[in-house]
Amino acid sequence: MRNGNHKKIIPAEGRQRVVIENVKPEIDGGRFPIKRVVGERVVVTADIFGDGHDSISARLLFRRARDRQWQEAPMVLIENDRWRGEFFVEEIGVYSYTLKAWIDPFQTWQRDLKKKAEAGQDLKVDLQIGAGYIEEASKRASKEDGQKLIAFAEGLKGMEKAENAFSTALNQELSDLLCKYPDDRFASTYGKELGVVVDRERALFSAWYELFPRSCSHQAGQHGTFKDCERLLPEIKKMGFDVLYFPPIHPIGKGNRKGRNNVLEVHPDDVGSPWAIGSKEGGHKAVHPHLGTMEDFERFVKRAKDHGIEIALDLAFQCSPDHSYVKEHPTWFRWRPDGTVQFAENPPKKYEDIIPLNFETEQWQDLWEELKTIVLFWIGKGVRIFRVDNPHTKPFPFWEWLIRELKSEYPDVILLSEAFTRPKVMSRLARVGFTQSYTYFTWRNTKRELTEYLTEMTRTDLREYFRPNFWPNTPDILPEHLQYGGKPAFLIRLVLAATLSSNYGIYGPVFELCVQEALPGREEYSNSEKYEIKHWNRDQPGNLRDFISRVNRIRQENPALQTLWNLRFFEVENDNLLFYGKVTEELSNIILVLVNLDPFHKQSGWVRVPLRELGLHPQEPYLVHDLLSDDKYIWQGERNYVELSPQVLPASIFRVKKRLKRESDFDYFV
Amino acid sequence: MRNGNHKKIIPAEGRQRVVIENVKPEIDGGRFPIKRVVGERVVVTADIFGDGHDSISARLLFRRARDRQWQEAPMVLIENDRWRGEFFVEEIGVYSYTLKAWIDPFQTWQRDLKKKAEAGQDLKVDLQIGAGYIEEASKRASKEDGQKLIAFAEGLKGMEKAENAFSTALNQELSDLLCKYPDDRFASTYGKELGVVVDRERALFSAWYELFPRSCSHQAGQHGTFKDCERLLPEIKKMGFDVLYFPPIHPIGKGNRKGRNNVLEVHPDDVGSPWAIGSKEGGHKAVHPHLGTMEDFERFVKRAKDHGIEIALDLAFQCSPDHSYVKEHPTWFRWRPDGTVQFAENPPKKYEDIIPLNFETEQWQDLWEELKTIVLFWIGKGVRIFRVDNPHTKPFPFWEWLIRELKSEYPDVILLSEAFTRPKVMSRLARVGFTQSYTYFTWRNTKRELTEYLTEMTRTDLREYFRPNFWPNTPDILPEHLQYGGKPAFLIRLVLAATLSSNYGIYGPVFELCVQEALPGREEYSNSEKYEIKHWNRDQPGNLRDFISRVNRIRQENPALQTLWNLRFFEVENDNLLFYGKVTEELSNIILVLVNLDPFHKQSGWVRVPLRELGLHPQEPYLVHDLLSDDKYIWQGERNYVELSPQVLPASIFRVKKRLKRESDFDYFV
Repeated sequence: MRNGNHKKIIPAEGRQRVVIENVKPEIDGGRFPIKRVVGERVVVTADIFGDGHDSISARLLFRRARDRQWQEAPMVLIENDRWRGEFFVEEIGVYSYTLKAWIDPFQTWQRDLKKKAEAGQDLKVDLQIGAGYIEEASKRASKEDGQKLIAFAEGLKGMEKAENAFSTALNQELSDLLCKYPDDRFASTYGKELGVVVDRERALFSAWYELFPRSCSHQAGQHGTFKDCERLLPEIKKMGFDVLYFPPIHPIGKGNRKGRNNVLEVHPDDVGSPWAIGSKEGGHKAVHPHLGTMEDFERFVKRAKDHGIEIALDLAFQCSPDHSYVKEHPTWFRWRPDGTVQFAENPPKKYEDIIPLNFETEQWQDLWEELKTIVLFWIGKGVRIFRVDNPHTKPFPFWEWLIRELKSEYPDVILLSEAFTRPKVMSRLARVGFTQSYTYFTWRNTKRELTEYLTEMTRTDLREYFRPNFWPNTPDILPEHLQYGGKPAFLIRLVLAATLSSNYGIYGPVFELCVQEALPGREEYSNSEKYEIKHWNRDQPGNLRDFISRVNRIRQENPALQTLWNLRFFEVENDNLLFYGKVTEELSNIILVLVNLDPFHKQSGWVRVPLRELGLHPQEPYLVHDLLSDDKYIWQGERNYVELSPQVLPASIFRVKKRLKRESDFDYFV
Repeated sequence: MRNGNHKKIIPAEGRQRVVIENVKPEIDGGRFPIKRVVGERVVVTADIFGDGHDSISARLLFRRARDRQWQEAPMVLIENDRWRGEFFVEEIGVYSYTLKAWIDPFQTWQRDLKKKAEAGQDLKVDLQIGAGYIEEASKRASKEDGQKLIAFAEGLKGMEKAENAFSTALNQELSDLLCKYPDDRFASTYGKELGVVVDRERALFSAWYELFPRSCSHQAGQHGTFKDCERLLPEIKKMGFDVLYFPPIHPIGKGNRKGRNNVLEVHPDDVGSPWAIGSKEGGHKAVHPHLGTMEDFERFVKRAKDHGIEIALDLAFQCSPDHSYVKEHPTWFRWRPDGTVQFAENPPKKYEDIIPLNFETEQWQDLWEELKTIVLFWIGKGVRIFRVDNPHTKPFPFWEWLIRELKSEYPDVILLSEAFTRPKVMSRLARVGFTQSYTYFTWRNTKRELTEYLTEMTRTDLREYFRPNFWPNTPDILPEHLQYGGKPAFLIRLVLAATLSSNYGIYGPVFELCVQEALPGREEYSNSEKYEIKHWNRDQPGNLRDFISRVNRIRQENPALQTLWNLRFFEVENDNLLFYGKVTEELSNIILVLVNLDPFHKQSGWVRVPLRELGLHPQEPYLVHDLLSDDKYIWQGERNYVELSPQVLPASIFRVKKRLKRESDFDYFV
C-alpha cells in the first residue's frame, strides 16, 4: 500500500544531531513578538538535547532589527534537558532572538577523560584524540590563538604522566579557546527568529489621569478650554500623574445628539457625547471650537510636557451622522434598503448618535489609509500616547497593520486598548500590538479574584505581551464597590491599582471627590459627564488629592513598584486582607503591601513574610516602614501581627529595611 | 526614529475578520503529526472569534493524504470562544486536518432579528436586509436550491405581520440552505495543515511476549531453533499474546565475545550476546545458522500468523567487530589514532563486543540507505513489527527519515522504541515517528508514581503521539520489586501492565516462572539469558501461565481495556490500593480495576465509585463481577468496602453490570 504524499527525501544535512524545541517565550509559534521596555531582560529557555550521551553547547543569538550580525549569549543547562540564556534590550525598537546548539566533541572528550582518569584507565590514545580536536580548532582560530592551541596540542601528545596530561586537558585557557572556536559544523539552528518589541519605560510604568476638558472652566455654565486645562497642570503634576488623557476633543455631531443621561430627547443646550465625532466644523483631525484652536492644543501639549506630563488622546474610529466621511465616502458605511445609513447597534440596544465604519467595504484599503492619517496627524501635533476606544469592534488585521506602520516610524508611540470584552479577544488585541490594555481589575475585589487574576497576568505567557493598565473607574464604569464602599473603598481601589499594576489610571475629578451616585441598578454614573458639562469643586473637603499624591510619590521613589512582573502574593490568615510584595532583583528595594479589602470593618491577622526570598535572617529583626502612614514597626521572623481599620487607613505600603550592622544598636536599619 | 525592518505592507485581504488560534491537537506548531489507529476519533478544539458581536460559523476540514477534496465537519461553540469539532479516521495511512471560519451575516441577522422582535421593534427594513442575504445565497446555490431560496426571499419581502415574517426568517429549511451556501468570501483559514498518522489497531492494543529462540530447545545443551519455537506457538497463543518478539536472530560476533554474566573472559562454548551482530556467517540480513535457515524463519513467521501471532524482530543498528560492514565500509565507524576501531563506551563503562555506527560520517547518506535496506529485507520476509534497540543513540533526523520512508510504502509497520532514557528524548522519538514506546512503568510502583505517570501520559499532549508499551521486566531489567515481592509482585505487575496500558509485554518464560535472582545490588538477571542458552521447565508448578491467559482473555473480551485514553483514577482510602476504571464511550463496557500494590500484606479500604460518570443510579444496586476470581459482589452507592490479600489474589478486575429492569427480582443485571 503506497502513500505518495508521505514521501520525504533525504535531508540536505543529516548530521545536525541536536534538537532545540519548546522555546520560551514564543508567542503563537513566533507569529507575534514579545514586549519589553528598555532595560528589561529577556530570559529564553528551551529543551535542548541530542542523541546519545555527548556534551552539548548552546548559544542564544540576538540582535537589533537593524543589525545583520547576531550577538551571542551562552546558554546553560538548568535541569532535565532545559537550558537557559538571557540578554537585555537596551534600545527602543525591535529585536530578534534565536538559538543554536551542537554536539561538542571537545567538551565530551574532556568529560570522558576525567571519568576514565578517575577509573584509572590508560589515557594515551585518548590524549592523542584530544590533541586532534585542538589542532582542528587551531585551523579555525586567529593566528595568535592558533599558535596557543598548537602548543596545547603538542603538549598533550608529548605527555606520559596521566596527572599532567589531565590538568593540561582541563586547562581553563584551553577550554576558553575551544569555546571561542568550537566545532559547530553540524550545529542545529532553531528554525525561527522570534521578535521583541521594545518600548520606552512609560509603556510599563505610568500613572494616568482622565479628564473631560470641557468641564475645566472655573466659571459655572462655561465650556472649558485647553487654556482652562493649562491651569490644572500643576495640580495634576502634584498628584503625581504623568499621562493626562482626554476623551475625544473633536467637533461633536448634532444629528441624533444624545441628551443628559443618554436620553434621546435633546435640549438645545445639550453638548452631546464627545464620542459622536464629526460635524460641519470638522472631524477626527479637528478640535472642538469651544475647546480652543489647534494652536491652543499644540501649546497645551507643550506646557504639559514642561510639567512632565504627556497628553494622551482618544482614538474612536466612528462617526456622528454629520461627519464629512459620511457624504464623502459613503462606501465606508453600511446602507439599509430604505436608503438610510446603518447606525451602531447591539440589538436590541441602539446607538443613534454613532455610525460605525464598515470594515468589509470594497474600499477597505482607502479606509485603513485614512484612519492611519488621523493618528499621524496627532503625532504631528506632539501626541505619542493614544487610548483606543473599543478596538475589539474593528478587525484585528487592521490593528496589526496600523500599529506596525505607526511603530515602524514612531517606535515611541504607546497605544492603550480600551477593550472590556472576552479574555481571548483582549489577549489577541495585545498580541497584534497594543502597548497597554484595560483589564477586569475594575470588577475584581476579593482576595481570590485578585490573586487569581494577577497570577494569570504575571505568571503565564500573558506577561510576555499583555501590559495591564488598572482603572478603578472610567466614565463608563462606576463599579458597585465604589457606589457602596464609601471613601475607604476609593482608598482601597487606588492602592490596589497603583501597587498591583505599574500602569494605572483614574478618571477624575470624580475619583478624588469620591463621587458615588450611579443610575439605579447600573454601574453608570448618574448625570454622567459624557453627556453634559460639569463644574467640580476640586478643593472640596475630604478629597483624596493628598492621598493620591502620596501613593504616586511612593511609586516614584520605589523602583520595586515600577514593574509588574515581580509581584508575589504572600500568606495572611484573613480572607479580607491581601498581602503581596514587590522586590527589585538585587533586593535593594523591598516593598510589602497590605490591603484591607473590607471597606467597612477593621481586619487583623498574621502575615507570613517570606524571609528567605527577601534575604532576611530569621533571627534578626527588620524594620517595616509604612510609607502611607509613616508608622514604623519592628518585625521578626515569618509571622507578624497586622491590623487595618478602614476608617483610619485601609492599606499599608511597607518598605522593608534590613539590619545595617550587628555591632551598633543605633542606626540599626539601612 | 525609523525602523525599516519593521515595515509591513497592507495585507492582500484585510476583511478576514475571524481569528483561529490555539488549535489542539497540534504538536510543535504542526511540525509533527498526531497518531491514531483506525476507527479512533480526532477531536479538534480551537479558539475562534472575530471582532465585534457578529455570529461566526466554523468548519473542521479533513482529508486522507491521497484525496484533494476536503471533507467538512461542523464546529460548535463550547464556551469562552472555544470551539470543537471531530472526525473519525477510517483507514490506515495519513490524514490532514485544518480549520475555516467566517463571520456569518445571515446567522447574525437571524439572531438580531429575534432580539429586535422580542423588544417589539419595527422589523420592516430588517426583513428586506434578510431577503437580500437570501437572494445572494441563491446565486451560490444549485438551481433547485436557488429557487427555494428566492421563494423565501420573496416571502420575507412581502410580509407585513411580524410573527409570520419571524417564523419564516428562522425556518429550519432556510437555515440549512444558508448553511449549505454560506457567504464565506472573507473566511479565515487556519494557516496550517496538521497531520494524523493512522496505524492499524495493533498499534494501540497488543500483548507482547519476548523470547530467546536459542533457549527453546527441548533438549538440554542444545541450541534452540525456529522449529523449536514452532512447538511453543500453541502455548503462547493460549496465554493470549499476539506479538512474539525475538532478540536479534543474526550471526553473533566472535571478536571480544562476552562470557556468561557479561564477563570479558570467554569460554569456547560461550554463545555471546545476540546484540553483538555480525560474523563471517553474515550480518543484519542473515539468521544465526544454529537457529535454522532463512526458509525456516519464513515458515515460522507464517506458522505464527496461522496462530494469530505476529513476529517482531529487533533492530539493533550496531556491529560486532566481525561484521562485514567494518571492513567494507570503514568510513561508517570511528577510528582511533592508534588505528583501532572505536568500540561502544559510556565512560568509564566499555562495551567491547559492540562497535557503534558513526552517524557523523561523510558517507552518512549511504549509511542511512543501507540501514533502510535492512528493514526492507525483513519486511520482505513477512515481518511488520520491529522493536528498535536504543534508538536514542542514533540521530533523530535519521529515525524521522527512516520511519517516513518505511511507512510511506508499508503504513502497517509498527516500530517500538526501546529508549529507557530522559523524558524529553523519549517524547521526541515518539514524535519523529515511533509507533510505540517503552516507558518508566518498569520502575513505577507506588500509587502516587503510577497515578502521576499515567495521568501525564493520558491527559497531556503526550496522548496525541506517545503510545506506551508497559513491560514489567526485560532481559536488561529485573526490577527490585520483582526481586523481593515474590509471586504476588509478579501478579501485581502483570495486572497493572495489562490493564493500565493497552499495549504491554513480558519477557518470558522468566516472568511466568517468577525468576527473581539478580546480580547482587543490581537490577540485572543473574546468569542472564543474554549471554547463555537456557533450558527452562515451562511447566514448573506455580507458574503464572493460567493467570496470564485469564488476564489476556479479559483484555480481549472487554473493549474498554483495548485503549488507554479512557483511563481514570478513582478514590480509595488506602495508599496501598490503586483503583481505576476504563469505560467504553457509550458505557456498554465498564471495567473497574483494584490492585493491592503491597505484595506482602492484606489491604482493605473504601472505594469511591464515580456513579454519575458510569451512568449508575445512586439508589440502585449494581453487580461488580471480578473477572479474575469470578467472585460477584452487589454494591450500592459511591462507597464500597474492598479487601485484597496478596496471598490469595492481589487484584480484582471488575466488570460492572447495571440493573436490567426494575420490575423483576431475577435476571437482575445486564
